[in-house]
Amino acid sequence: MLDHNVIQGRGFRNVVDGGRVTGFQFELRQPNYRGTAGSLLDGVGVVVDGERIPDHVPLWTLQGRTLTLDELRASTDVRWQLDEPAVITVPKPGGLTTGVHRLEVVVYLRRPYFPPAVSRTTFTAAATGVIVPPAPEGGLRFGVSTYSYTGDIYTLMTLEDVLADVADLGATGIEILGEGNVPNYPTPDAAWVDHWHASLEKYGLTATNYGSWVDTDMWRDRSLTAEEGAAQIQQDLRLAHRLGFTSVRPKFGVVSWDLEPHPIWQEAVQRSLDLAAELDVVICPEIHAPTPIKHPVTQAYVDFIEKSGTEHFKLLIDTGIFNTEPVLELSEEIESVDGGEVPEHLRPLAVPMADLVEVLPHVHFIQAKFAEVDDDLNDLHVPWGEIIPTLQDAGWSGWLSSEYEGRREPYRARDQVRRQHALLRSLAARR
Amino acid sequence: MLDHNVIQGRGFRNVVDGGRVTGFQFELRQPNYRGTAGSLLDGVGVVVDGERIPDHVPLWTLQGRTLTLDELRASTDVRWQLDEPAVITVPKPGGLTTGVHRLEVVVYLRRPYFPPAVSRTTFTAAATGVIVPPAPEGGLRFGVSTYSYTGDIYTLMTLEDVLADVADLGATGIEILGEGNVPNYPTPDAAWVDHWHASLEKYGLTATNYGSWVDTDMWRDRSLTAEEGAAQIQQDLRLAHRLGFTSVRPKFGVVSWDLEPHPIWQEAVQRSLDLAAELDVVICPEIHAPTPIKHPVTQAYVDFIEKSGTEHFKLLIDTGIFNTEPVLELSEEIESVDGGEVPEHLRPLAVPMADLVEVLPHVHFIQAKFAEVDDDLNDLHVPWGEIIPTLQDAGWSGWLSSEYEGRREPYRARDQVRRQHALLRSLAARR
Repeated sequence: MLDHNVIQGRGFRNVVDGGRVTGFQFELRQPNYRGTAGSLLDGVGVVVDGERIPDHVPLWTLQGRTLTLDELRASTDVRWQLDEPAVITVPKPGGLTTGVHRLEVVVYLRRPYFPPAVSRTTFTAAATGVIVPPAPEGGLRFGVSTYSYTGDIYTLMTLEDVLADVADLGATGIEILGEGNVPNYPTPDAAWVDHWHASLEKYGLTATNYGSWVDTDMWRDRSLTAEEGAAQIQQDLRLAHRLGFTSVRPKFGVVSWDLEPHPIWQEAVQRSLDLAAELDVVICPEIHAPTPIKHPVTQAYVDFIEKSGTEHFKLLIDTGIFNTEPVLELSEEIESVDGGEVPEHLRPLAVPMADLVEVLPHVHFIQAKFAEVDDDLNDLHVPWGEIIPTLQDAGWSGWLSSEYEGRREPYRARDQVRRQHALLRSLAARR
Repeated sequence: MLDHNVIQGRGFRNVVDGGRVTGFQFELRQPNYRGTAGSLLDGVGVVVDGERIPDHVPLWTLQGRTLTLDELRASTDVRWQLDEPAVITVPKPGGLTTGVHRLEVVVYLRRPYFPPAVSRTTFTAAATGVIVPPAPEGGLRFGVSTYSYTGDIYTLMTLEDVLADVADLGATGIEILGEGNVPNYPTPDAAWVDHWHASLEKYGLTATNYGSWVDTDMWRDRSLTAEEGAAQIQQDLRLAHRLGFTSVRPKFGVVSWDLEPHPIWQEAVQRSLDLAAELDVVICPEIHAPTPIKHPVTQAYVDFIEKSGTEHFKLLIDTGIFNTEPVLELSEEIESVDGGEVPEHLRPLAVPMADLVEVLPHVHFIQAKFAEVDDDLNDLHVPWGEIIPTLQDAGWSGWLSSEYEGRREPYRARDQVRRQHALLRSLAARR
């Protein structure tokens, strides 16, 4: 799907030519109610961060061909269709800096079916966009979870749009929710599975972590048995493996405010370790606020790892445990839990870096949970300036997978994910 | 695509069982961030126009199966997926009246991965919906133009969503814009054409009118020749016919404030009449404000019809010419034309019914242009209470095709089209 705003969320980037940054690009959807011949286009004025670029300067890329305004006016065989964005290229040596920029555009379009005096019509649009730098070399790899797009996925964006977005911001890993993004879960048809693998290839993405659930209170009158819990884990291990994922995060039902997992967890996991080894998929319990690292729940997982000696059960860290400020940008979902008050599990734990360092050898995956990155690329809650160097100092390698969990206004998530990647990669590049 | 609101725009209807209205239905998307087992659902409270229906009363239809709350709680093999709406059926003898209703819902969902005290979570949503009565028997047929969905199509709705919406509101005709809704216009691939015909069949829709353009000022330095204009018309006649349409409205470039078409129109049409006859597609020039019926432009079309004796050139009436009030709900597009002032062509012409009666024998198609139908099903501008009886008294038969042209907030069009159909069909049913 295209964005409702004429200025599209995808496609905002610097243009590199012969190793030098020569300008920047963005995409527009056709602002008129119909598609038109290219010759009816009459320029596009651009104001970027207050700097005005005259309407004859930008280049237009339509249907794969890049044209100057004069070429466009004389053209006979190129169209701006209603369902295909135009790429606008603005020459600007050095391009734009990493971070958030303000764009205003005026598209000029001649409409011969309007009276001559008003047939050169203008369409205006404004938006902010985020320039995301390339991911730096090193052990940290940058991905995104589909969870980030909650509310927007299947409404404003197809799953394929999400993959396109993730690729467009330069991330290389995709995390999904099994009981969410797999059509006809738990039995997708073979054609869908083939399409999934083709899409990963098309967008240059690696399948990272697969979120699953063990709903221990699936029915009101009894809990799942350990055998049923194991069957659930194994179903998801097989499906995750079939889709190319290398880890599964089973979210167990909990029995306390501390998120203590239902007691079947240990036997259910134990019964699944052989299959996990056979498929080479790592089972990752999630360390999530309000449970810090120094806590019996985390300790029980570490004990299990050390006692079993398995390589297929490791920790997944949700970075919400490092929050230093309470999350005030409440999502609808959070509001619904507790009458609008910040619930216990969102109060900042501010887990110290030393605790992270201690368990890092057992950490397989990091969900880069966040709620708000501002216009200056400051995260209002998560101390990335400590987390990233800590991971680098420890020589940790693995995925940081964005989990946006802030306000759910339409299209907000995709912008926030871009901001977070600009922030994380800038910090990682300081080494 | 699903609607962003949990309460969906499609699917709001009365339920008829054995010839009696037994209740009403609506559709919800899964409000959680994941799909869930049906057994985790714990009821849905509904308030309709202030009347409260307890949460254990509505029936749920998931994956084609209809279940009571108790059946759902005990279920083992039904899911509410993230990408599939649930149908909620509320028993209510007599159902709901034609028109706009206020719906509020509370979905109860157990989430075992939340602490027990808060694991029964609530998701609330509110919306208005429109109950549209069936189309009455008679010569008037009810359709919709894709133009209505400007801005929403390809952003919030696919073309297939539009067809589904049109069918859902009980319309049977679909009008499109050739240079807008045909991918890769003017040369769609054969697979798309096949899919188009399959979609018409799936949704029970008849292809009605195909909007086309003759952009006489395609280039800045010269006008199209009559030969070029004819080639444009003929290209669209062939494409329209291939897609099953029975009329084409070519919108010519104009040379005056009165929308006087470029002088090539007559020769371009004349050269195309044989093809139109061969394909049995009627070419329909549009009578559109600020051009009334008693006007040299309209008269020239009527003269052409009478002189040529053709059956394949007839009038298309845009009901904006009957407006009795100026349209103040300006669309973005209109604002962009004229600095925010109501442009000349939108000032109300209030064309009298007698003028319509006079030309009706030459009228092939009516674009039911409108900008705002209020909560009580009053159109703020178009005197439908005069137009519908006039058409019925004259024994006119043909399509009334909704063209919404009001404010372009997301999802507004689909709601307004439902309101207009409820209004038009109620008026038509008075006979």
